[in-house]
Amino acid sequence: MHLDETSGTPFYQQVFDHFRAGIEAGAYPAGSKLPSIRGLAADQKCSRNTIEAAYQLLVQEGFAVSRPGSGYFICDISLLQATPQGRTAAPRADMRPRTRAAASSAQVASDAALADNAAHGAPTSHAPAPATYDFTYGNLQTGTFPAASWRAITDDVLLSVERSAADTYTDPCGEYELRHEIAWRLGALRSIECTPEQVVVQGGTQSSLQNLLALFDVARDAVAMEDPGYDGVRAAIERAHFRVLPCRVMEGADAFLADVRASGARLAYVTPSSQFPTSGSMALETRRSLLSWANETDAYILEDDYCRDFRYKERPVPPLRSIDERGRVVYMGTFSKSLSPALRMNYLVLPPELLERWRTAFAGSYPAVPWLSQVVLGRFMSSGQWDRHLRRVQARNRRKYDALTEALRTCMGERVEVMENGTGLHLLVNVRDGRPQEELVTLAREAGVLVYETNKYWMQRDHALKSCVLVGFSAIAEKDIEPGIQALAQAWFG
Amino acid sequence: MHLDETSGTPFYQQVFDHFRAGIEAGAYPAGSKLPSIRGLAADQKCSRNTIEAAYQLLVQEGFAVSRPGSGYFICDISLLQATPQGRTAAPRADMRPRTRAAASSAQVASDAALADNAAHGAPTSHAPAPATYDFTYGNLQTGTFPAASWRAITDDVLLSVERSAADTYTDPCGEYELRHEIAWRLGALRSIECTPEQVVVQGGTQSSLQNLLALFDVARDAVAMEDPGYDGVRAAIERAHFRVLPCRVMEGADAFLADVRASGARLAYVTPSSQFPTSGSMALETRRSLLSWANETDAYILEDDYCRDFRYKERPVPPLRSIDERGRVVYMGTFSKSLSPALRMNYLVLPPELLERWRTAFAGSYPAVPWLSQVVLGRFMSSGQWDRHLRRVQARNRRKYDALTEALRTCMGERVEVMENGTGLHLLVNVRDGRPQEELVTLAREAGVLVYETNKYWMQRDHALKSCVLVGFSAIAEKDIEPGIQALAQAWFG
Repeated sequence: MHLDETSGTPFYQQVFDHFRAGIEAGAYPAGSKLPSIRGLAADQKCSRNTIEAAYQLLVQEGFAVSRPGSGYFICDISLLQATPQGRTAAPRADMRPRTRAAASSAQVASDAALADNAAHGAPTSHAPAPATYDFTYGNLQTGTFPAASWRAITDDVLLSVERSAADTYTDPCGEYELRHEIAWRLGALRSIECTPEQVVVQGGTQSSLQNLLALFDVARDAVAMEDPGYDGVRAAIERAHFRVLPCRVMEGADAFLADVRASGARLAYVTPSSQFPTSGSMALETRRSLLSWANETDAYILEDDYCRDFRYKERPVPPLRSIDERGRVVYMGTFSKSLSPALRMNYLVLPPELLERWRTAFAGSYPAVPWLSQVVLGRFMSSGQWDRHLRRVQARNRRKYDALTEALRTCMGERVEVMENGTGLHLLVNVRDGRPQEELVTLAREAGVLVYETNKYWMQRDHALKSCVLVGFSAIAEKDIEPGIQALAQAWFG
Repeated sequence: MHLDETSGTPFYQQVFDHFRAGIEAGAYPAGSKLPSIRGLAADQKCSRNTIEAAYQLLVQEGFAVSRPGSGYFICDISLLQATPQGRTAAPRADMRPRTRAAASSAQVASDAALADNAAHGAPTSHAPAPATYDFTYGNLQTGTFPAASWRAITDDVLLSVERSAADTYTDPCGEYELRHEIAWRLGALRSIECTPEQVVVQGGTQSSLQNLLALFDVARDAVAMEDPGYDGVRAAIERAHFRVLPCRVMEGADAFLADVRASGARLAYVTPSSQFPTSGSMALETRRSLLSWANETDAYILEDDYCRDFRYKERPVPPLRSIDERGRVVYMGTFSKSLSPALRMNYLVLPPELLERWRTAFAGSYPAVPWLSQVVLGRFMSSGQWDRHLRRVQARNRRKYDALTEALRTCMGERVEVMENGTGLHLLVNVRDGRPQEELVTLAREAGVLVYETNKYWMQRDHALKSCVLVGFSAIAEKDIEPGIQALAQAWFG
């Protein structure tokens, strides 16, 4: 390396360019260590800051990772260059290949290489074969987030006098405009009558629950929860130190209601419009019985309506909240399935009595979500862009649901039982030959298909469905669904 | 009103313009009700959507509020037009007078007017006399938030391939680049050696504490806390259902340490570099004793270093975390005092053992802060803009500290005792004549000066300083400090 004072290029950029070229040419294999900052600065007769800046740039651009105390190590850049199907591409043509997926994959690969180095003493590259078809649940299809609109509205807000709100502590319950937009749509689209004041903007399902539990008595109150159910909610309840009592959902409404009644719980967490993970819809009669239980025992129901926007068949049963006459239901909705899981925004609609308790408990607290996100989302909604966006996402998910159910029928037929309920962003697929789900997941992965185990959703593990795997369609592209299921059928049934 | 089809102006805009002109001309007094959407749409032979859109625009622009079930009501726009000193101005010349302060003030005023209407049957305007000098603590001076840089970086991120991260669930501990920037500066500037992995990005002091307490045993572990201390932290501990044990800070180090030792707590919350609210600095010897207590009792210390950036006199004592050899200290820092309280971002640095527990407890959870905020802040830091920004804010706060202490000396002399410690964003002022703080705050407010009561910071209320008020300088403009204190002296001492 020779630093050229006359080139007009800053030294740190020259150092960065030198290493980048070397890495791309293969001169620095993945896992190998960069020279120490001190040593290289002495060699090059430049300041350590110069080298540090160059190394930081290498890290930022995904060429290296820093391991404090050890130094800087070269990443496996083949991952930055690969563009497998069904995954986030990180095009090298773009000068900013810092996608999170690429960076973290690179880091994982690098960590693996480093661990291997420690064991074998030689730098080697260990890029796992990238999955071709990822039927994950949760993440959205790349490009779902309306980045251009978000950018335009953010610009607009930060150029207006509104930006002065950034210098203040804002309303702990959320920005009024956003709450108004939410409340208005709940009334118009879901028959949920509420005021904007009852809507509390929150930073995700788990933290909402954590906050809600502040209003209950940890020593006395327990939480009833569907079993199987969302493991993230169970973890959040346990982190808040409350007892969780499982209520069976797969053995009929009577068993479920009996478990709820026997629980003695003061709060029941349910997903009536699309039970997670079975996707079933709670019958109207069961809803009424559950409300009666709450009325009679002075308990509350947390209705997580996370998937209301995604129903593909019959007209949905009305939300519990819409038939709740005595203020026993806390309604919860989210933007993670339709807008962005990375924005961390959901909301609670509190009944009057809990709203009072909430206001007292959180009187000296601050918003759960940044002011800017709230204002931008509020304007995205009030301008009508939200409604158009949602329709597009709904239409796409409907096509993917149809493609997935059709592919499963065609490729697997009677060899599997598919829990089809015309709702949700995934299907549970039960393989009839009784192989354990771990084996099914492994066989699939070896064929480049990612499907997921379901054991963790059961609190009572002995009730879990042995051969049941989760096949999600929120993230995978429509065109990849059929070939993905074909590959899966091949892996499972030959 | 006459809707003109030929004007080229959309109908909803014409409806909006009509009402805006009327409101500004005083034809629709504050508190009066707008015509019903249905009725007006029928009158004007246009769709209800048109009227709804116009009314929503009136709400957005601060001219009206919606009261679901009742209709739309005119706001008191005198608050939108007023531009008192030391407060956020909402210039009418700008077509977007939607500052939060203005909107919510307008709403409060409107609510008051509506309540009054209900009682007296006539619309009246109730604008409270605006304070001229607000010595609040917490909010920052208008214009502190670097909106232009934030906007430019946000643009950049949302135009790059990075934006695809918005479609995914990201690292629950935070974005690596931001954690790296924080860790690097902690090492360089505060002698705190930590890895980026130990830095966990969080959404504010209160929710950090709530999360941290998930790692403790609610049935057994109590939390020791300085008394007086930050009431928001006390509330957060109580919301998590843990016992809080007060430890006296104004009766010397021995009393404090005796209280800590007697508490039996497993976690102690302290603010060693600027005790809140007294602004005192914990002596090195006391820090060592506190660490010994933690080592001996297997307890942890949460060091809230919220005000490290703002020291105006001697070189600061090193953070507890920097002399902690056995991993007993959780270090907490914030961006609320230097960048924006509305962004809701702070961080914890966890010692190895707690980091392990954290990773287990939060394995299936999600980030506390939106991905976008984290990425933008990370880039703001890595580009060097953060360091320049911080220097500017520090210089301004130093000037304000000097102006405030000088004004208090000049205008009040020996009639008050000022707790000056060369740090923080407020001063405690103890009036020697013994009048109760409630009276002092009321006298000040009547003279257009806002200072604040301090009682709430004491758990043991009988220890509170009867005549002590809080005078903050983070939000007020430098030029307003001297006249504000003159007005305060006049109000208190004539």
